[in-house]
Amino acid sequence: MSDISSLVEARFDPQRHNKYATLMAAGNGYLGIRATHEEGYTTQTRGMFLAGLYHRAGEEEPRELVNLPDVVGMHIEIDGEIVNLLAGKLLSYRRELRFATGELRREAVWESVSGQRYTLLCERFLSRHNNALFCQRISITPHNSECCINIATGIDATQTNAGRQHLDETQVRVFDQQTMQAIYRTRSKDAHVAITCACLVSPRAQVSFSAKNRRLQQHSFCELKPGETLTLDKYCLIERWLDGEVPKEAGQTSLAQLSACMEQGYEALLGASAAVWQAWWRQCRVTVQSATQGDQRALDFALYHLAAMTPVHDERSSIGAKGLTGEGYKGHVFWDTEVFLLPVHLYTQPEIARQLLRYRWLNLAGAHNKAQQNGFAGALFPWESGRTGEEETPAWAAINIRTGLRQKVASALAEHHLVADIAWAVVAYYQATGDDAFMAKEGVELLRETARFWLSRATEVDGALELHDVIGPDEYTEHVNNNAYTNYLACYNVAMARHFSKRFAKPDEAFSSQLDDFLARLRLPQPRPDGVIPQDDTFFSKPTIDLTRYKANAGSQSILLDYSRAEVNEMQILKQADVVMLLYMLPWLYGEPVLRANLAYYEPRTIHDSSLSKAIHGIVAARCHEPEQAYRFWREGCQIDLGDAPHSSDDGIHAAASGAIWLGAVQGFAGVVAMQDELHINPALPKAWTSVAFPCCWRGRKLYLTLTHQQLSVESDGPVMLHVCGKAVEVDGRADFFIPASGSGTSQEGI
Amino acid sequence: MSDISSLVEARFDPQRHNKYATLMAAGNGYLGIRATHEEGYTTQTRGMFLAGLYHRAGEEEPRELVNLPDVVGMHIEIDGEIVNLLAGKLLSYRRELRFATGELRREAVWESVSGQRYTLLCERFLSRHNNALFCQRISITPHNSECCINIATGIDATQTNAGRQHLDETQVRVFDQQTMQAIYRTRSKDAHVAITCACLVSPRAQVSFSAKNRRLQQHSFCELKPGETLTLDKYCLIERWLDGEVPKEAGQTSLAQLSACMEQGYEALLGASAAVWQAWWRQCRVTVQSATQGDQRALDFALYHLAAMTPVHDERSSIGAKGLTGEGYKGHVFWDTEVFLLPVHLYTQPEIARQLLRYRWLNLAGAHNKAQQNGFAGALFPWESGRTGEEETPAWAAINIRTGLRQKVASALAEHHLVADIAWAVVAYYQATGDDAFMAKEGVELLRETARFWLSRATEVDGALELHDVIGPDEYTEHVNNNAYTNYLACYNVAMARHFSKRFAKPDEAFSSQLDDFLARLRLPQPRPDGVIPQDDTFFSKPTIDLTRYKANAGSQSILLDYSRAEVNEMQILKQADVVMLLYMLPWLYGEPVLRANLAYYEPRTIHDSSLSKAIHGIVAARCHEPEQAYRFWREGCQIDLGDAPHSSDDGIHAAASGAIWLGAVQGFAGVVAMQDELHINPALPKAWTSVAFPCCWRGRKLYLTLTHQQLSVESDGPVMLHVCGKAVEVDGRADFFIPASGSGTSQEGI
Repeated sequence: MSDISSLVEARFDPQRHNKYATLMAAGNGYLGIRATHEEGYTTQTRGMFLAGLYHRAGEEEPRELVNLPDVVGMHIEIDGEIVNLLAGKLLSYRRELRFATGELRREAVWESVSGQRYTLLCERFLSRHNNALFCQRISITPHNSECCINIATGIDATQTNAGRQHLDETQVRVFDQQTMQAIYRTRSKDAHVAITCACLVSPRAQVSFSAKNRRLQQHSFCELKPGETLTLDKYCLIERWLDGEVPKEAGQTSLAQLSACMEQGYEALLGASAAVWQAWWRQCRVTVQSATQGDQRALDFALYHLAAMTPVHDERSSIGAKGLTGEGYKGHVFWDTEVFLLPVHLYTQPEIARQLLRYRWLNLAGAHNKAQQNGFAGALFPWESGRTGEEETPAWAAINIRTGLRQKVASALAEHHLVADIAWAVVAYYQATGDDAFMAKEGVELLRETARFWLSRATEVDGALELHDVIGPDEYTEHVNNNAYTNYLACYNVAMARHFSKRFAKPDEAFSSQLDDFLARLRLPQPRPDGVIPQDDTFFSKPTIDLTRYKANAGSQSILLDYSRAEVNEMQILKQADVVMLLYMLPWLYGEPVLRANLAYYEPRTIHDSSLSKAIHGIVAARCHEPEQAYRFWREGCQIDLGDAPHSSDDGIHAAASGAIWLGAVQGFAGVVAMQDELHINPALPKAWTSVAFPCCWRGRKLYLTLTHQQLSVESDGPVMLHVCGKAVEVDGRADFFIPASGSGTSQEGI
Repeated sequence: MSDISSLVEARFDPQRHNKYATLMAAGNGYLGIRATHEEGYTTQTRGMFLAGLYHRAGEEEPRELVNLPDVVGMHIEIDGEIVNLLAGKLLSYRRELRFATGELRREAVWESVSGQRYTLLCERFLSRHNNALFCQRISITPHNSECCINIATGIDATQTNAGRQHLDETQVRVFDQQTMQAIYRTRSKDAHVAITCACLVSPRAQVSFSAKNRRLQQHSFCELKPGETLTLDKYCLIERWLDGEVPKEAGQTSLAQLSACMEQGYEALLGASAAVWQAWWRQCRVTVQSATQGDQRALDFALYHLAAMTPVHDERSSIGAKGLTGEGYKGHVFWDTEVFLLPVHLYTQPEIARQLLRYRWLNLAGAHNKAQQNGFAGALFPWESGRTGEEETPAWAAINIRTGLRQKVASALAEHHLVADIAWAVVAYYQATGDDAFMAKEGVELLRETARFWLSRATEVDGALELHDVIGPDEYTEHVNNNAYTNYLACYNVAMARHFSKRFAKPDEAFSSQLDDFLARLRLPQPRPDGVIPQDDTFFSKPTIDLTRYKANAGSQSILLDYSRAEVNEMQILKQADVVMLLYMLPWLYGEPVLRANLAYYEPRTIHDSSLSKAIHGIVAARCHEPEQAYRFWREGCQIDLGDAPHSSDDGIHAAASGAIWLGAVQGFAGVVAMQDELHINPALPKAWTSVAFPCCWRGRKLYLTLTHQQLSVESDGPVMLHVCGKAVEVDGRADFFIPASGSGTSQEGI
C-alpha cells in the first residue's frame, strides 16, 4: 500500500483556488472541509460541512447543507506585512494531498515584499479515528532575518452559504486562557454545533484573545531568529446535535476531549487517523498498472473521495451530489447515490450499501407524503433529499434573466425514474449479499411501496399501460411519454416487488394481481429491426443537428447559449443517453448487437453535458468488447474533476463521476457484472492497462481479483461460484483463469 | 474655491485598505459607499448604506444599518490573469479623493505576473445632484501588448453585515440585454431596495449576463491593441422604500431614469454633482492659512464627511456615530449628533440643525415609552437610536471571553445625560436662529418632556434633590451620584423648560412649580476653593495612578488590558473629562480661573480614550487663552481619522471627531461662542495659523468672518449685533476689528 498516490498542485494559481479547494478537500463522512489556504484570498470559498446538517434560511429558501463557521483561516503577519502568496515572490510552491493518509501538506518558499525569505509549511488532516477532530500545523522559518510574527486564528462565524447565514451564536468563551469554544444553534433552533479549539505555539508566544463581529480568535505573537521555526498546532473538535438540545455537560466534555487530544500531539493523532485509512485502503483499493500516467491516481482519487463523502456514522444521512466538498446542489441527495455510489460500496463494504438503503427506508414517510400530494399512491421519493425525506428541490429554478420570469423546476414533478432506481439498488444489494434479514424488513417494503407508486403512475391507452409526461435521466428531453429508461426500470421495479413479495411479504392477492396486470400491460419500447430502442414515443420524429462543437465543450451546457431549452427539447439532442443507461442498468435484457446498435445511434446525439454520461457509455462500450473506445470514455470521465477546466469543480466534487471511475474499472474493464444472482466476469482491458487488481465482496465472500490481458487470478476466502467469460466456475482459495483474446471463452488453469 | 484640498493615498497598502475605504467613502447623506477597490481583496470590507435603512436580522439581534448588495466590485481578468495589485509589480499608484467634487480617482501602472504593463484608471462619484445615482468609470490601457480583458460586475447580494444578511431577493432581471435590476426586501418585509445598473463598454465588447448565488453580473469581453483603452462606465441607481411596498411602476421608472442618466453620460453627471458640491462649499468652507501642512485638509475632510453623512433629504433619519461609512456602532445615532455635529450645521445651514431636532421630536413616542418602561416620566431618549425612536442599544455587551458571561450594556440604563444634551441643542438652535415657530411647536415640547424626565429622575436626600446612579460622558466612571455634567445639564434643561414655557406653552401652574422646586433643590456640585469641581460625589476619594503610558496610546483603551472595568471605576481615571465637557457646554457658568483649574486637574487624569475628548479640551484651552495647548489638542483630534493608525477607522469614520475639527477651528481658535442669545467672538489663534475664514449664520444673518492674529473682518448681509472680545458691536456690511494681543480688548476700525 506504500504506493498509494497523491494529488499534487505544483503551481499557486488563484484561478484554480476553488478547484483545488474541492479536489483536496478533507472528509471522513461526518465532516467535510474544503482545502482553502490558511491565508485569505478572495478567489477561494471556504467551506466546512457536517453530514445531515441542513437548514432553511427562510421560508422561501431551499434547505441547504450548512456552511459552518470557518476554522481553517489564519491571518498571518510577518513584520507587519500580511502573508499573501500573490504578493512578493513565490520561489517554490508545492501542495500535496496524500490519499494514503488524508494528509494535506503545502510547502512554499516565499520572499516578502520587503525582500525577506521564509519557508512556510502548512499541514492538516481530518481524523478518521475521531471524526470530530481536525488538526492543522503551520510552520514558518525565516531564512536570513529576525522577524516578528503575528498569527490570528480561531473560529470565524461570519461564514455564510453565498450570503445566507444559518447559525446563531449561543455561547462564545475562552477557557483557561487557551481553549476557544463557540456553540451555535440553527436559526430554526433544531440543531446545534459546538466548535472547540486551541492553538499551541512554539517557541513560546505572547497570546491574547478577541471576540468581535462573530469572530473568536487567538492572537499569537512571536519573535524569531533566522533559521528558527515557529510552529502553531491547532486542534479543533467540531461536534453537532442534529435534533434537539446540546447536553448540559457537552461543552465541558469537549474541553476534556480536546485536552486529551492535545496531550497526544499532532503526530500521534495523525498516526491514529492514518491507521484507519490504511486499513480501509486494504479493503477497497483498485490497483492498476497503466501506460497512461494518472490512471492510478484517478482511481485513488475516486476512492479517497468516496471515503470522504460517505456518512458511515449515521444512517439518517446519505451522500450529496457534491459530497461534503462544496455548496453545490445545496448538499442534496439525488439518484446518483443509488446508481453511481452505492454499487462501489456494495462490492467493497456491503454494509454501507445496506445503510444507504436504510436511509431511504427511514424516509418512506416523506415519499408517501410526496406521492399523496401529487395524486399518486405508494412511495414517490423526493428528487432531492436532505435529512428528513421531504422534497428539497427548489420550487423555482434560476430566474430567466431575459424575461425576468422564474421557471418551475420540473425534475421534482416528473423525473420519477429515481423511484425505480432505488428499487434497482435494493435488488442489487440483495443479489450481492443474500441479506434475507434486510429484504424481509426494509427491502420488500421499499420494493412494494415503490411498485405501488408505479401502479398509480400508469395511464391506460387502448388497454395498454403507459407512463406519460416523464423526464428520463436525459434532462434535455422533458415531458415525454414512455421514456424507455423509465418504463423498463418501472417494469423491473414491479417485477422485483412481485418476485420478492412471494417469499418476504404477507400474501396479498389483490396487490399481487395488480402487479401482474401492470407487468402484463405495461408498454415497453421495443428495438427497431436495427436494434435501436426509441428513447420515447416521439424521439425518432425529431430533427437532428450537428453537435460536434457542443460535444467539444461537454459539461458546459454550451448548447443553451444557442438554443432555448424548449428548442433543445424538440430535437434529438441528449444530455446523456437514456437507452445506453438502461442497457447498463439491466444488462441481461439485450445482447451485444442491441448494445452496439444503441451506442452507435445515441452517442452522436449525446453532448455528455451530464457528468454521469461518459462513464456509462464507457462501460457499455466495454461490454461490447470495445475496450479502446471504453477507455477513451473512461479517461474523459476522469477529467471531469481532474482535468484542466479551472472552475467546473468550484462548488464541489462530482460525486457520481468519482463513483463512475471505480465503476468503469471494475464493471467496465474488469467486466465484473451481477447478472441477477450470478457474478459474471467478462474482462475487456484496454491496451494501456497491463493489469488491474481489486477486492470484491460477493455473497459474504471476500474475493481479490487480479487481471491481466491473459489471465484472471481470483483469491477467495471461501467457496464461491463465478461466471468467468461465460463459464460457471467454483473458486475456493486461489484460482487462475486464462482470458481468451476475444473475451468469448475461458479455461481454468488450476485452483 | 479652486484650492479645496484632496485626500491622497500614495501607497497601496493592504493594512490600510479599510482605513482608506472609510476615509475616502462617498456620501451624500442619502447613501454612503465605502471606497473599496473595484478588484477584490480580503483585507477590505465593502459597504453601502442607505440612511435610515435599519433591520434586525433576528429577534435577539440588535437592529443595524443594512450593508447593501455591493455594486463597486469588479472581477477583472487580463489574458486570463486576475487583476490584483498585490501580484505582479505596481509601478505607480495614486488614489485621490477630491473634496471639491466628491470624485474618487485611482491611477496605477501595473505589471502583471506575466510581465505585461497596463495603466488602470478608476474613477467614481456618488451624485449630490441625484442622490440615488452612483457612477463608476474604469479604464484599462495595455502599454505594449495586445490583450483580452474580461470584466464581470453587477450587483452582488452576498454582502452581509459581518455574516448577517438582511435582504431577500424579490426580483432579479436583465432588461434589453443591457440593464440589470434587482429588487430586495428586508427579511421583516418592512422595507425595499431597488438597484438598477448598466455598464457601457467601449470599444465594443461581447456581453453576457449571469444570475447565480445572489450575484447578478454583466460579463464584458474585449480585445485591445497596445495603447488602446478599454473604458467601462457603470451607472447605478440605488433606491429605497423604507415603509411598505415598492410602487408597481417603480422598476420601470428606474429603468427610464437610468436610461436618461446614461444619455447624459459620465462627465455631464459628474458636472451636475460637482456643481452642488461647489455651492455647498461656498456655504460652509473654513479656509485656513497654516504653517502646518494638513490643517486645511483636515478641515476640508471634516466638512466633506459632514456633508456625506447628513441625511438632509429625510427628517426621519439622523446621523450615526460612523455616518454612512461603516458598520461600526450598527449605524446608530448617539448624543454625538446633537453635541458635536448639530452645532456645525447650526452655524452653516441652520435648517439642518432644525431637522435633526425634528428627528428627535418625531421620535418622542419612543422616548416616552422608554421612560415609562424604566419607571420615569417624560421623555427618556434612547441611548442609541435608529429610525423608529426605539432603544437600539444592544441589551448585552460583548461576552467577557474569560468568564463566558455577557455583561449588560449600562449606557442605555444610566447614561441619561443625552436627554439634557438634546434640550441643550434645542436651546442652542433657538438662540442662534430665533426660530419662534420651531420653539412654539417642537422646541418647547422637547424641553418640557425632557424636563419632566428629570423631575422623575431625581432622588430626595435631606431635602435636596440628587441624581443617583448615572453615567456621565466619562464611561470609565459608572453608576455614580451627582455627576457634575449630568446635574448641571439637567438643571439647564429644566431651567430652559421653565423659561420657554412662559412664552411658548399653555400655562400649567402645577408643572411650573414642580420645575421651580426642582431648580431650587437640585444639588449642583460646587467648585472647591481651588476652583476644581468634583466630577461626582465620590470622585475625589478615589486613588490616582500614573497614566502616561495609557495616554500615549489614547484611543486604544489599553488601560483595560491591565485593569478590569470595575478596577478602573474605582480610580481617578477618565476616558474623557466630564467637568471640562460641562464647562465647554455652558461657558457662561464659570470664568477663566475655574476653567483653568479644572483643565489642570482633570487633564492629567484623562486618557482621552474617547474620540470626543481631545477636541473639547482644546476648545476649553483656547477659551483659557492657551492657543498653543489648544492647537496641540486640535491637531491630535485631527489624527483620530487622519493619523497613521492603520485600523482605528476600519469600521467607519469618527463622525463626532469630524464635527470637532470644525468646532475646534470656529469655537476654539476663532472663539465664536453663543453666550445664551449673544454671539461672542474671542479669538485665540495658534501661532501656526496666519488666518482663518469661514461663513457663519446667526439669527438670520449670513456672516463671513476672516481672522488674523491682529484683526477680525466681518461681512454681514444685514445688521447684526456681535460681541467681539467682550465688546458689543453692530455690524452691517463689512467691519474690521483690531484684536489685542491679550485677547482682552477690541477696537473697531471702521464699518
